[in-house]
Amino acid sequence: MSSKKHVPYRVYLGEKELPESWYNIRADLPNLSPYLNPATKKPVTPDDMKAIFPLDLIMQEMSDERYIPIPDEVMEIYRSFRPSPLCRAYGLEKLLDTPARIYYKYEGNNPSGSHKLNTAVPQAYYNKKAGIRRLATETGAGQWGTALAVAAQMFGLECTVYMVNVSYRQKPYRKAIMEVYGAKVHPSPSPHTNTGRSILERDPDSLGSLGIAISEAVEDAATHEDTNYSLGSVLNHVILHQTIIGLEAKKQMEKIDEYPDVVIGCCGGGSNFGGIAFPFLHDKIREGKKTEFIAVEPAACPTLTKGKFAYDFGDVAKMTPIIEMYTLGHDFIPPGIHAGGLRYHGDSALVSRAYRDGLIEARAVRQTDVFKAAIQFARTELILPAPESAHAIKVAIDEALKCRETGESKCILFCLSGHGNFDLTAYEEYIAGKLADYEYPDELLNERLKCLPDV
Amino acid sequence: MSSKKHVPYRVYLGEKELPESWYNIRADLPNLSPYLNPATKKPVTPDDMKAIFPLDLIMQEMSDERYIPIPDEVMEIYRSFRPSPLCRAYGLEKLLDTPARIYYKYEGNNPSGSHKLNTAVPQAYYNKKAGIRRLATETGAGQWGTALAVAAQMFGLECTVYMVNVSYRQKPYRKAIMEVYGAKVHPSPSPHTNTGRSILERDPDSLGSLGIAISEAVEDAATHEDTNYSLGSVLNHVILHQTIIGLEAKKQMEKIDEYPDVVIGCCGGGSNFGGIAFPFLHDKIREGKKTEFIAVEPAACPTLTKGKFAYDFGDVAKMTPIIEMYTLGHDFIPPGIHAGGLRYHGDSALVSRAYRDGLIEARAVRQTDVFKAAIQFARTELILPAPESAHAIKVAIDEALKCRETGESKCILFCLSGHGNFDLTAYEEYIAGKLADYEYPDELLNERLKCLPDV
Repeated sequence: MSSKKHVPYRVYLGEKELPESWYNIRADLPNLSPYLNPATKKPVTPDDMKAIFPLDLIMQEMSDERYIPIPDEVMEIYRSFRPSPLCRAYGLEKLLDTPARIYYKYEGNNPSGSHKLNTAVPQAYYNKKAGIRRLATETGAGQWGTALAVAAQMFGLECTVYMVNVSYRQKPYRKAIMEVYGAKVHPSPSPHTNTGRSILERDPDSLGSLGIAISEAVEDAATHEDTNYSLGSVLNHVILHQTIIGLEAKKQMEKIDEYPDVVIGCCGGGSNFGGIAFPFLHDKIREGKKTEFIAVEPAACPTLTKGKFAYDFGDVAKMTPIIEMYTLGHDFIPPGIHAGGLRYHGDSALVSRAYRDGLIEARAVRQTDVFKAAIQFARTELILPAPESAHAIKVAIDEALKCRETGESKCILFCLSGHGNFDLTAYEEYIAGKLADYEYPDELLNERLKCLPDV
Repeated sequence: MSSKKHVPYRVYLGEKELPESWYNIRADLPNLSPYLNPATKKPVTPDDMKAIFPLDLIMQEMSDERYIPIPDEVMEIYRSFRPSPLCRAYGLEKLLDTPARIYYKYEGNNPSGSHKLNTAVPQAYYNKKAGIRRLATETGAGQWGTALAVAAQMFGLECTVYMVNVSYRQKPYRKAIMEVYGAKVHPSPSPHTNTGRSILERDPDSLGSLGIAISEAVEDAATHEDTNYSLGSVLNHVILHQTIIGLEAKKQMEKIDEYPDVVIGCCGGGSNFGGIAFPFLHDKIREGKKTEFIAVEPAACPTLTKGKFAYDFGDVAKMTPIIEMYTLGHDFIPPGIHAGGLRYHGDSALVSRAYRDGLIEARAVRQTDVFKAAIQFARTELILPAPESAHAIKVAIDEALKCRETGESKCILFCLSGHGNFDLTAYEEYIAGKLADYEYPDELLNERLKCLPDV
């Protein structure tokens, strides 16, 4: 097709065109290793997870069915904020003077401001269905906590959010929006759990950490019969729900007679990248499509590009299953970059396996390059991107500039996973020239990785 | 039609279905009085406005053509963020248990976060076309300044924003987002103008006011050949541009075989209300439709419901034309409610005339009732509304509850003019029970109004 055939700025789908099943890539990744029980080191059983998850989600976590139907009750709510638009980046293309065709799927037009709502809704639904009265979770920057607060509200569930204390103090807006949607927000460490109390005893002014907040939320769920735990990334069922992004994108691209040559997503735990990429990766695995996939991570937390493929814990406190994944070690504390959603020591089992099998590439980018790309995007595409999402923008721009060199007219698709309205402090620092670059020194990383067992 | 026939949650328009002209209600309001020159008290001439506005906008301000074509260059940009969705409020209807059908037009899904971008884009375009290099404006809460910064960026214009000092300090996010889009933001009063310098001399810590900021922006424009002034509401050409909202809504409702019985908009200067209402008001004036129109204002600033229809200045500093309008007096300082966009002492000439002629109604509502409605809406419709927009929600809810009493199945349409992501401090105060109600005492108001000349 001609490289600059006119397509609309935004492609939507009719309500009846919404995908009605999620895509489960477990069916197409034969080499996956099982999760291990942290105590017994044996493969995890459904029973091991029953204390904190409803059975439906446990079965999804372990299912090998290729397509899993979306329940009517979830479709009903999806329809109120989906499909998200597929946008053609005409403004950015013009700025870059590239023959590439750049598309992005914009997930920021919902009350949580990010793709997180795609999994929060089904998680709330399945918990409600299981007779659960309350959900407990942790949040760092606040996107996940906001999404779960919204979803809990929709199903009449209570929601308790353990918010990392330093964020609780620095981001009062995030706390307030969770309260608007009816959630109880505790600064973590809190006096509400044994974990929290023991830390506060030693350090009453503790700033907290995501590891502590996870421990508090899991403890809350495990010690209350009517309460379950919810996680916003990493796990299979979370990525399963996020495939709605890529499934919609496929239908939208079909409508305009397009198919991506390159699919790009930022990658922290992996649910955003998996969400946009896996439905297209299906075509590569099963139909031999030649699409490239690029998972983008911060140079400050280079799990795929520099981590080790090993069995490791999903959390600092060693309460989660042991997962085979690319990891920098479960006690790795990434530098304080302004992309809280990407500061995770590992990657989901699914993304890790796809990378290990050579199905996808990974690239690490620096913070100041990311913000430069974010501002180029904002000024041409009229959307202020979340710093996490801007990692994908940075690589989309790099790919488009390569096309300018080679003259190729590639079709580039990336996921713009959220807006940056709550990240303006970071933008201000960048504009004032105060934003630092972090790249983890290889010697230090290698020293860390030596301690991890080989797979 | 059946009261609960299924319609989609959101109705869009194809790119080719976008309206291609704005609707100019001046053609259908025969009793309009001219603006007067503040110095001569004679009707304003195009020449009087040339120092700060481009000729195209001056002609639009005075035109009596019913439809004014939208230039291709503006359409091109409109297509990147329009049409805005028309949403069916199923969640809110269910909460209220009402037979009414509630629709809202959501204008918050663009980078300025509000309807203000609809006029910022053509204003930037016409100024660019006239050879202007820079735009100067004022902003209070920051929505208008953000919109103009975005639009100026699109046309390669510089943009200088005089931001009321107290907001500049309290809302660093708003300042930052304007800078992301390339604007220069000065706290007002500033040392950059005579007005600013003279105030700073007397009071170096002045918190500023919208009146001072307007004076600085107008002075900046009037004293620089290459610079013009832009205003975000009140004037005819601003409301003209905003009619894109109602024109789209008409097409969207046609698609689902609906027509509103009631149209509701919040009303400060009047551009949001006029934008949603006037295209439907056209049908009432020219085709005898029976639709009701309700302009909603804060009880703290009850211009239509308690003001006087008189010739008055548009600004505190008496630099603007004298306009026949409902006013509380140009030196009226409304209480500090959390709806900065509605704290204006008067109303546009067009809204005022329509009200005077009995074509529309007005209603004043209290701040705490507004926030109660906002939270009901957020929890059922999954969008956090701007406090200004929540004034319209409050009255839409009242109307829907009336339908529950009477059993009528009215079709209610309101404009959700923006999101509340930058207003979370106000929500937090409401949730904490700290938000005050203000109602201006009638005795004080009447005392004020005595000083205004009769028309």
